[in-house]
Amino acid sequence: MELEKQVREAAESAKRAARALAKCTTAAKNNALLAMANRLEAQIAPLLSENAKDVQNASARGLSAPLIERLTLNPKRVAEMAAGLREIAALPDPVGEILGLTRRPNGMQVGRMRVPIGLIGIIYESRPNVTADVAGLCIKSGNGVLLRGGSEAIHSNLAIAHLLREEAEKAGLPAEGITLLTSTDRQAIFEMLKLDGIIDLVIPRGGRELMQSVTAHARMPVIKHDQGLCHIFVDASADLSPAVDICVNAKVQRPAVCNAMETLLVHQSVAPAFLPRLAERLRDAKCEMRGCPRTRAILPDIVAATEADWHEEYLALILSIKVVEDLDAAMAHIATYGSAHSEAILTRHHPNAMRFLNEVDASAVLINASTRLNDGFQLGLGAEMGISTSRIHARGPMGLTALTCEKFIVLGDGHIRQ
Amino acid sequence: MELEKQVREAAESAKRAARALAKCTTAAKNNALLAMANRLEAQIAPLLSENAKDVQNASARGLSAPLIERLTLNPKRVAEMAAGLREIAALPDPVGEILGLTRRPNGMQVGRMRVPIGLIGIIYESRPNVTADVAGLCIKSGNGVLLRGGSEAIHSNLAIAHLLREEAEKAGLPAEGITLLTSTDRQAIFEMLKLDGIIDLVIPRGGRELMQSVTAHARMPVIKHDQGLCHIFVDASADLSPAVDICVNAKVQRPAVCNAMETLLVHQSVAPAFLPRLAERLRDAKCEMRGCPRTRAILPDIVAATEADWHEEYLALILSIKVVEDLDAAMAHIATYGSAHSEAILTRHHPNAMRFLNEVDASAVLINASTRLNDGFQLGLGAEMGISTSRIHARGPMGLTALTCEKFIVLGDGHIRQ
Repeated sequence: MELEKQVREAAESAKRAARALAKCTTAAKNNALLAMANRLEAQIAPLLSENAKDVQNASARGLSAPLIERLTLNPKRVAEMAAGLREIAALPDPVGEILGLTRRPNGMQVGRMRVPIGLIGIIYESRPNVTADVAGLCIKSGNGVLLRGGSEAIHSNLAIAHLLREEAEKAGLPAEGITLLTSTDRQAIFEMLKLDGIIDLVIPRGGRELMQSVTAHARMPVIKHDQGLCHIFVDASADLSPAVDICVNAKVQRPAVCNAMETLLVHQSVAPAFLPRLAERLRDAKCEMRGCPRTRAILPDIVAATEADWHEEYLALILSIKVVEDLDAAMAHIATYGSAHSEAILTRHHPNAMRFLNEVDASAVLINASTRLNDGFQLGLGAEMGISTSRIHARGPMGLTALTCEKFIVLGDGHIRQ
Repeated sequence: MELEKQVREAAESAKRAARALAKCTTAAKNNALLAMANRLEAQIAPLLSENAKDVQNASARGLSAPLIERLTLNPKRVAEMAAGLREIAALPDPVGEILGLTRRPNGMQVGRMRVPIGLIGIIYESRPNVTADVAGLCIKSGNGVLLRGGSEAIHSNLAIAHLLREEAEKAGLPAEGITLLTSTDRQAIFEMLKLDGIIDLVIPRGGRELMQSVTAHARMPVIKHDQGLCHIFVDASADLSPAVDICVNAKVQRPAVCNAMETLLVHQSVAPAFLPRLAERLRDAKCEMRGCPRTRAILPDIVAATEADWHEEYLALILSIKVVEDLDAAMAHIATYGSAHSEAILTRHHPNAMRFLNEVDASAVLINASTRLNDGFQLGLGAEMGISTSRIHARGPMGLTALTCEKFIVLGDGHIRQ
């Protein structure tokens, strides 16, 4: 009961602040963002000392090495947070943009205006830099943000949020527009998810369990940032040298992220020429390969893939490989096993490129390009909120405009409905 | 258990059909829509006889006269359903439209393509024409639709859906793309709401209780079609003659709909000149008025408004009236009591018009125009799915494009992530 009240009051005060933020000028918001960036850089030592508490607790609790790595701040990471806030300040303000203002036959003008969504709830895990990134994006787009970071990062998150709020206030913005839930009780998440009418949108960023829990309990709209089971299909006509480069890039450059390739599909006619060239590069990169029987006929040294492999997001230096009959077989495999995140075809055959582009269902469909390019910076959105795996409102990388909604505007001159 | 299985199987078969519909050509979809329109008109007699069963049952169960009125079909209403399908056929197909294809510094082209959402679940009440309207919109936008109409309209809905499915199939579209749940058990709705991953979006159309129930139970995205508590603010500088016409139009033309005015706010300086002129017209229209003390000082014959009146969506020929100090007081009233549906200002003062336009939060904000104009046809969208009261994805009237989502497309030439 106490926790319910605490979460509700935090959300209500953030919502009031969101209403004020919606009216702030671009200049005021940018000044606040730049001041926040400066302040983070000026406070590296105290931030690192708060972060050290989290890291010590995590070590004492025996958390995994990758998790501790994600949790740890250092001067470079703080500088990156500051740089991120400056980049957001440099982006155009989406609020107030008027779209498609046209005149109706009766003379009245009709268009749409981008406006902030309201109060956005973010539920995330371990990485403390997310606190600054998402707060910056929400402030710039005129939204309030209610942050619920992982309990393992609570000291870091509190320290970051405290600095951001102080600078917001000095710049004339309402401090409560950036509100971090102080409770590390998991129940606080469920209390958040009940607050439809106060929280306008919830964005969960994390693992499968968090996604399912939020989906099941949220009473307000949810935009998921789920993981990706991404494929590349190497078609019969693919240029082999760039195809090798693209596949290596998609698998090896950063295997633990959502837009890395997990399964490679290769057209049967090109497999004997292509697979040995690729395998050599992947072996150099210490990437394990698991193949279907036809793949293993060409690469006899690799492990046999099982049905479970086609379902698996390794998020690691492991690649499953399947030789397929043709484009239709590749697209059928993607429709069955893919997560509709990032899907690529490598081909010189125009009709196949167009069929893949039109028929494959994914947040990004790529022709002759690496799945790793499905990213807000790469696609030209500037700073991003993450990659939405939802279909509704925002799909794929979410930039600032994805944090707005549109209201209709009507400029009349005594118009009535006939 | 039986019902759970029945709903799941219906949804799964509709989802398979949705995948096929996503690839259908515009010509095939339009041919199907035109054939459906012809078939409805050719089958008026059998449709009316099925509808008569529903009307008899409703009378026997003692349902209210307005509900029976909405339930009843007649030749004109069937002709309107057919005309609606022909209008949808005449609208441009949103599927496949490519937006903002631009070249990145590295030469790769990036844009977005409109694609169908997938399987859309519609939960609605009483009016059988909704069956044809929403099926037509979903088919045209390449989506499958799972319909759950009111139990009181089950014979009418089954008859309409049967005809639409037969014509879809004859035109080469999958019949299961239009699937009506045959169970009239209320539990069938809850079974639908569990099917995230199969149903991509749920649109409830109906009363407050249905909205709350869907919000609480749906695991997939929801776009609500809720009611509206709409205001008009008559500013000090309003032109009085058009202001009277607009207020009468907004209140009287069709009082039972969501974009009708419920509360009138009048600037104190214009109230003595304006209110008597308006009251005369509203009395002629048999509209009851309920006023604040300052209103009653000008119109002493009318009833006193209570706090409850400012919260009330009458959906009837009743208007609450409040005299306010200024624009800020009007906007504060709207922010407190409004439902963010349709809000209008009548003014000749440009700064006030701009402040109202920028600061008022609603699906449509109107200057010198009737709230009744917040409608898909009036705003130029063509046929509409209804008026979304959600903020996310689609806000205000939902046309065909609101039934699509966007995927990123990337046209590369060997591009990798650096």
